Order: sequence, then structure tokens, then C-alpha cells
Amino acid sequence: MRALYFDGTTLRSIDDQPAPVGGPDDAVVGVRLAGVCSTDLQILAGYMGFTGVPGHEFVGEVIDGPAHLAGQRVVGEINYACGRCPTCRAGLRRHCPHRRVMGILGADGAFSERLVVPVANLHPVPDAVPDEAAVFTEPLAAAFAMLEQVTVGDGDQVVVLGDGKLGLLCAQVLAGTGASVTLVGKHADNLALVADRGVATMLLEDWAPAGSADCVVEATGSATGLAQAAAAVRPRGTLVLKSTVAEEHRLSLAPLVINEITVVGSRCGLFPPALQALADRAVEVTPLIDATFPLVDGVDAVAFAARPGVRKVLITAG
Amino acid sequence: MRALYFDGTTLRSIDDQPAPVGGPDDAVVGVRLAGVCSTDLQILAGYMGFTGVPGHEFVGEVIDGPAHLAGQRVVGEINYACGRCPTCRAGLRRHCPHRRVMGILGADGAFSERLVVPVANLHPVPDAVPDEAAVFTEPLAAAFAMLEQVTVGDGDQVVVLGDGKLGLLCAQVLAGTGASVTLVGKHADNLALVADRGVATMLLEDWAPAGSADCVVEATGSATGLAQAAAAVRPRGTLVLKSTVAEEHRLSLAPLVINEITVVGSRCGLFPPALQALADRAVEVTPLIDATFPLVDGVDAVAFAARPGVRKVLITAG
Repeated sequence: MRALYFDGTTLRSIDDQPAPVGGPDDAVVGVRLAGVCSTDLQILAGYMGFTGVPGHEFVGEVIDGPAHLAGQRVVGEINYACGRCPTCRAGLRRHCPHRRVMGILGADGAFSERLVVPVANLHPVPDAVPDEAAVFTEPLAAAFAMLEQVTVGDGDQVVVLGDGKLGLLCAQVLAGTGASVTLVGKHADNLALVADRGVATMLLEDWAPAGSADCVVEATGSATGLAQAAAAVRPRGTLVLKSTVAEEHRLSLAPLVINEITVVGSRCGLFPPALQALADRAVEVTPLIDATFPLVDGVDAVAFAARPGVRKVLITAG
Repeated sequence: MRALYFDGTTLRSIDDQPAPVGGPDDAVVGVRLAGVCSTDLQILAGYMGFTGVPGHEFVGEVIDGPAHLAGQRVVGEINYACGRCPTCRAGLRRHCPHRRVMGILGADGAFSERLVVPVANLHPVPDAVPDEAAVFTEPLAAAFAMLEQVTVGDGDQVVVLGDGKLGLLCAQVLAGTGASVTLVGKHADNLALVADRGVATMLLEDWAPAGSADCVVEATGSATGLAQAAAAVRPRGTLVLKSTVAEEHRLSLAPLVINEITVVGSRCGLFPPALQALADRAVEVTPLIDATFPLVDGVDAVAFAARPGVRKVLITAG
């Protein structure tokens, strides 16, 4: 079958990847659409030392699996937990120290005609959610993770730094809580995408951090975002770190101590609230799609996704 | 009167410092004992650009002030708030952006025969607390600040990194919550001070971070402590930053995001719980005293406090 394969150095579209075979707790999923994420770009730059088939955002249909999922349109959570260790038993399966992670760590991913996913990780997609929206479930769940970790609501002043894909999703999710949300970014066209979604927007060049926000979300994807975020949050406020930046930060953390800031690292979230928000159209995702490539041109898709200013790039399995 | 004066370059003991005169909302306090804090050493190295009389840990008696405090033995909170700005009105007086800070920012401190303190900042000392314990109220309040910010209790696994003064106080405060506390440090004699206070102890050289603690307190005073602390805390656990380290940290924050750690900056706390703990002898502080110098030898006191392994150094106003 066709898949994108990364050998640790080069990404290639190949047509002789063996079709994956699952174990008794797995399902085989035929991929309909996959999304390219910034994490994929980091992985292709060597992050995590991954080799294999990348890709962890997808919507597909179950080709081989348990009866209740047969033929179902599904999305899949990316962390494959052991289910037996103390971390799993404490309800933190997404943090299982023995976990494999779809297209990131020890498990082939979704830039492929088919992939194998543990049945426990699959969620049926409501009919109201088209494929082009369902493929955003994973990054949208990552945005909803914040609401598991931080109390934000009516009357709170929230700043989201970074108008990339994750920032655009985070701003919409936070606006849904009733908080007063300002999205700050460099791209007027990106900011415009959420201007009618209850989000105030501001160009970075016009913005000065005021040290008054109750909550600031750092979604710039850059090592310099943290200092800006710390300058924007009020004393005893909350700073949510959404960017996974592999490079070193260089900063004094003294301001975090002096102002008694709480910094919350936030990564993956639960799929059900994300699927519900997509079904309700409480969050608008499809305007983020900039291009769709067939799998045979998947290398071009990834290269296009790496261009500055490009938002979501999709890959069809066809 | 006699005081230690820092001109931005050199600390001197002088005998011609003008006696301080307070405003209508201030009291004049005669200093009985003052404590040297690591922050003082940083200030004398240029931190905060302070000039004047340093020192922010003291116990004294009210010489001139309102009737209800006349002659009272008192300790004093160090942040002098404006009381009128939005931050103060939100109950965050310790974070008032217009604040002066005793011996740190815009206000002379306690390495002096007398100092002026706003009446609102003074707390009478219970008779059960001797001067030698009362002088620890400010750093002990800083340890109690954690309990305002973080929920820790029965059954929680807590690691305190750093067996300096602050670490020794934090470990005792946390043990008082019923949590299972391990203090990790480099000094066997320091660790021994809390071994009979319900705190497990371990030498740093024997310790390996296990990524399993519910809460880790970083009190090493070193820029390298954060990475060790991050390695010790479990996914979705809490890391409390107590060290004010002016130097730059160099680290990737990706592990904080991947493991969804909450990092809580923690600085100054409320005095009443600290005074209560001292009155109840719930926390033992006087074994931390290594030396007491008269104010005339205050420069030697500060130099002695800077020696490796030295714990608390006190200065008497006599």
C-alpha cells in the first residue's frame, strides 16, 4: 500500500509499505483524510528520533475491527497506553510511561492508506461532522485540554499569543467559556478567521503586554513566546504553555516567582468535547484548510505545510 | 543611628544614618533581631539595583506608632502596597505594581537600629514565640505561601529539592499537611535538622528523580534545580518554584508541556499562619541559626552568611 515513510533522514512516498496487521485489541482503519501538524515538521527535523510512517491527525473508516465499529467513520486518540501501570490506573493513560504514540513514538501513523489503532482509542464521528472538520479533532482536543486543567470563564481576561493553527483553535475554545479573549498574532489574514467568533484580535506589532490578563496562552511555537506571555499575565495569573518547542529556552524564571505565576503545560486532550464542538459548529475549523494533496504527493504536502503563513494542509489517502 | 548602608557597590556599617521618620500610616520600630536572607546576598550583588539599608527579616518593638501597637513586639510584612490600585483592590496587595519592598525596592530595611514600616504591615508576636524564632516569620510565611497556591495533603508524595534555609522550612510546612515529604540536599548536617520532624531525607548523590512525585518544590537557589525538579514530578503533577534565581535558565520547556506539569511560582506569604506555627512549635527554626553578630559587625555577618553551608545568620541591633 502507499504511505509516507521517514527513515530518520528523508521522507518518501512509497507504494510498497506492507499493509498493517493489528492485534486482538486493535482495529485496522482506512484513512480518508490526514492533517499535517507542526509536530510532524519537528519530527521530520529529528525530534523524538522517529522512523516509520508519521501523521497523527486523521479521519477514517474501520476496515477490520469489532462489530460495533465495523464500517464506522472514526477518529483516534494518539497515545497508546499499556492500561496496566500505576499511571494508567491513576487515570492518566495519555501519560503512560510505556505508551506508544501514533506517528510520533513507536507506532506508524496516518500518512498512509491504512493504519492500526487500538480499539480503545477510536471514537465514532457524528454524522453532522464532515471529514474536513473531523480531521481537526485531535488538535481541537489539544485545545480543549486547557479546560481540563485551568478554570476560565465569564469575566476573565484571556490573551492567546500566536495565530497559528493551535492559537486559532485555542482562542475559539476559550471564547466559548464566556471569557473575554484577545488573539495576538502576526498574520492579519489568520486573525480575520476568528474575528466573527467572539474573539478580539490584535496584530503583534500593535500589542504591548500589560501584565493584567488573568490567563495567557502561549501558542507561538517559538522559544521567545514565553517571555512575552509572562509579561502579559497578571500576578497570581495563569500561563498556559501549548507550544512544544524542542529548542532551549534562555530566560530568567525569576519573574514567574516574583509574580507568583502558575504555568500549566498542556498537550493532548479528550476527544468527546472536541467532537461535540465540531458537531455543534461551536468552533469553526474548515477555514484553516489551505491545501489538500493526494498521498502520492505527500512529500510536497509536508513541504507546503512548512512554508511560513501556511495553516492546515490535508492529505487524502486516494 | 547605626545601620548597614549599601551604596550600590559596597556595604558599610555606619553610625550617622539619620533616624527614620514615618508618615501618618507608619510606625517606627526598634529592631531587636534581623536575619540575613539569600535575597540580601543577591541584592548586594546588584539584584534589583537597590541602594539604602537592606534587610527584610526582623523582629522589633514599636517605638512610635498607634496606641494599640505601642511597645508591642512585632514582625512586618515586606511589601508596602498602595492599597488603591486594581491589584490591591483585587486582594493582591503583595503584588501591588506600585509597591515598595522593605530593604529590596524603594524602602530602607531592617539592618538598622530602627526602621519605618506601614502600620498595616505589622503583626504582634505571640508571647510564646521568642525573638530568635520570631525573626523567621518572613521566610516561614514564604514557605506557607505554597499552601495558599497548591493543594497538598494526606497521601501525596512530595519532594523538596534543596536543604538550604528555605528548603528546610518548606519541608517542615509540607510535612504538617500530612503529605509524605522527602527533602533532598547536599548537606548531611542540614538534612539531619528535620529528620525528627516527620521529613524523610536523602543526599542528592543518592537520589534519582523518578518522575513520580505529586508535588516537587524547587528550593535549590540554583538555575540547574528546575530540570531536576521537572524530572522528579509525575505527569500532571505540580512543581513549585521557590528559588528566585536572577541568572538565566537554559532549558527546553518541552518536558513541561509533554508531561502537562503545572509550575507554580511562589514567593511571599501571609504572616498569621507562620506566627501560629511558631507559637505551636509546629515548625522548628532556631536550629538553623549558625551565628549572631552585632550591627557594628554587620558587614562581617553578611560575609559569613555568604559562606557555603552557612544557614541563618542573625544581626542584633545592639
